[in-house]
Amino acid sequence: MARESRASRDVTGGRAEANQLAWRRLVEADPVLLDVQRAVDAVPGMAPNMILTAGAPLPWRDYAGAQRTAIQYAAVHEKLARTAAEADEKIRAGEILVGSTHDHGCVGPHTGIHTASMPVFVVEGPGGARGFCTFFEGDATPRRLSLGFYDDEVAAQLAFVADVLAPTIGEAIRRRGGVRLSPIFREALLMGDDGHVRTAAGTLLFTRALLPALLDLAGERGGDVRRTLAFLETASYSFLRPWLAADKSLVESIAGVEGSSLVTVMSLNCKEFAIQVSGLGHEWFRGPHPRFEGRIGETVFDGTGALPIPEGWGWFGADSLLAECLGFGGFAGAAAFPLQAYYLRGGTTRDMVERNLAMYDITVGEHPDYRIPFLDHRGLPIGIDLFKVLETGRTPAINGSIARMDGTGFTGGVVWPPMECFEAAAAAYRARYGS
Amino acid sequence: MARESRASRDVTGGRAEANQLAWRRLVEADPVLLDVQRAVDAVPGMAPNMILTAGAPLPWRDYAGAQRTAIQYAAVHEKLARTAAEADEKIRAGEILVGSTHDHGCVGPHTGIHTASMPVFVVEGPGGARGFCTFFEGDATPRRLSLGFYDDEVAAQLAFVADVLAPTIGEAIRRRGGVRLSPIFREALLMGDDGHVRTAAGTLLFTRALLPALLDLAGERGGDVRRTLAFLETASYSFLRPWLAADKSLVESIAGVEGSSLVTVMSLNCKEFAIQVSGLGHEWFRGPHPRFEGRIGETVFDGTGALPIPEGWGWFGADSLLAECLGFGGFAGAAAFPLQAYYLRGGTTRDMVERNLAMYDITVGEHPDYRIPFLDHRGLPIGIDLFKVLETGRTPAINGSIARMDGTGFTGGVVWPPMECFEAAAAAYRARYGS
Repeated sequence: MARESRASRDVTGGRAEANQLAWRRLVEADPVLLDVQRAVDAVPGMAPNMILTAGAPLPWRDYAGAQRTAIQYAAVHEKLARTAAEADEKIRAGEILVGSTHDHGCVGPHTGIHTASMPVFVVEGPGGARGFCTFFEGDATPRRLSLGFYDDEVAAQLAFVADVLAPTIGEAIRRRGGVRLSPIFREALLMGDDGHVRTAAGTLLFTRALLPALLDLAGERGGDVRRTLAFLETASYSFLRPWLAADKSLVESIAGVEGSSLVTVMSLNCKEFAIQVSGLGHEWFRGPHPRFEGRIGETVFDGTGALPIPEGWGWFGADSLLAECLGFGGFAGAAAFPLQAYYLRGGTTRDMVERNLAMYDITVGEHPDYRIPFLDHRGLPIGIDLFKVLETGRTPAINGSIARMDGTGFTGGVVWPPMECFEAAAAAYRARYGS
Repeated sequence: MARESRASRDVTGGRAEANQLAWRRLVEADPVLLDVQRAVDAVPGMAPNMILTAGAPLPWRDYAGAQRTAIQYAAVHEKLARTAAEADEKIRAGEILVGSTHDHGCVGPHTGIHTASMPVFVVEGPGGARGFCTFFEGDATPRRLSLGFYDDEVAAQLAFVADVLAPTIGEAIRRRGGVRLSPIFREALLMGDDGHVRTAAGTLLFTRALLPALLDLAGERGGDVRRTLAFLETASYSFLRPWLAADKSLVESIAGVEGSSLVTVMSLNCKEFAIQVSGLGHEWFRGPHPRFEGRIGETVFDGTGALPIPEGWGWFGADSLLAECLGFGGFAGAAAFPLQAYYLRGGTTRDMVERNLAMYDITVGEHPDYRIPFLDHRGLPIGIDLFKVLETGRTPAINGSIARMDGTGFTGGVVWPPMECFEAAAAAYRARYGS
């Protein structure tokens, strides 16, 4: 595969040198949003009978709760099965295939569902590496397939995305000849976005970038353009999707840099937190659930894990934690103080700043272009070094969420990965490269 | 006049009560951008041969430097005179009238030039009080009439504003039935705007608010809509203008609240800093030039005024300091850390926070809706109480600028008003209301 040949070109002497090489590729990247296509047409290895879901892959029997339900309903939505029960049978029989998003260059928030017919953003990063991500379904209903819920309303919303939103945005992107994303990321970080759980500014800037093309299109299909603009006005998470696709294209470009200990993936499935490391290609290193810091109802969780998560709440997958591998999310928390009110409830801005500052201890360097105004325009900390995590004992601070297991909602907070993943990766690294 | 009858309705017992009444009117206001009209059609007391300029009015002989030049060229631009020299003669002869913006409900950045034919934003505030402001001319040329410069390029840019930009935006506003501004202010403060020297988010949000109407208009006049959107994409100061018009409509609504010591205007002309106070109607209280804190070239000014401002630099007017009377600008500095890099050069974000916090000591209260994320979503300090300024010895910290006197540029910094204005106003207050 391409990634193996790339790795062999990148052989360098030491770990520090390898990390510098990988790091420079990340910070010098100029990812371009090329197109919107159906997953089956764009995603390598995607098949009409395949469903992709978040996190490291599991045997079918191990998918539980909302993630299992989401996969079954995805099969129904894709017309691969008439009912969730039939989907279950066909998956057992191998007639429907279940795969991991990350193994196909995809990244999806929550359960991360990608089906063959779903439209995806196509982003090209360094050296032609590509990343893909589905569309945000909007806030019209709090229930979503990606949260493990499916009914007529959810289906109608997905149909709107596939029939109106994606074709309109896709055509605008093509007419514009692609959209360079770095200038939008840079500006959005000055406007309160963290690039993970707040993308309100990015969505506005992305809309503005498409306007001339949308105006051209309005002559032929004014209704679609109007509905698209109305959607983008309220769906402030929309720009998270191309942002994540860009993140994925970047880490794909350093998957297999010989000797590099940079963390290239962090992701959750319903059972495990798992990571990948640049110099170890696409191998998964798994650990238990993360710890949660935040508020569920009236109960405040401090992140130590001492308090058990209440019945009916838990983890159902999350690829979007990838953002933190690129210096966004909790690594840019001090750029996104608006989050303190509605997302990281219970914490103070001082906590956000302290968590953000700690991330400089576990990263290779500061981004030369993406800056955090509050930190006197210091570049954001980017490039998590596995060994810095182990040496400092600090795991990444992730702006994430914990969900209701019935697929009806989630609540934001700080997600702290388990050290076990990093220890497992370090053992594999030493086995391959020596200590 | 209307303002006098309003004052007489507002008679209350004490100063604190009067200030509460005035303050509540400010924070409960829901200003609406109604229209774009020619100044002569919208502005009370405006005449075809009248030129309005920033700050307290002066006799013609006292207007100097860029402000004098701007007034003369405004007469040329308005075709009231063929040359600056002829304009000078006609002003001396009383054939051309020069007035103060604030005396007509107008507010203009820099020299604040308003001529009869210029389009203005029309904003209606509490009780029907109105505020007006001209359009930003854009960044196409660094030279502007409002900076005291005039040539063919400046004239062409003003013609674009009058012939394309203003009619297009005006029509969009009317088709939309007006634009409520408070939701935009609220959101923009979450996105790095201070509402005075940074309005990048506000301009984006304002553009979005006009989009459906602009899309309608595109059928009839697609070229104008396209040029308008292209202008708004780069001219990030555009939204300052309706924002200032709203500010003016708010303070007009409390001009003449009997017994109130709230500061309703702060403004500069080329010779003086001057203020108005709610309970003293539209009387001006004047003082010397403000002190400047910031950087001119390589020289850092600390705001003590110990270092003389270099030759060729100085003050030429500024109505936009009104923003600080409404809790924006320096009073919302901790909402706008992006400014630290490109506007308030030389200072740190810690300085911005400290200056912002000090403003709570001189204001009546915290805005219930406009919040500063970094201060754990504390409401911004609004309602400068003249007597709190005198008691604390703190004058307002204003995000302002100092200019080249030849009209070719300016540089941002903190502007500290002279205490003399406040002392003069306090004396007048005591003379009217007793101590």
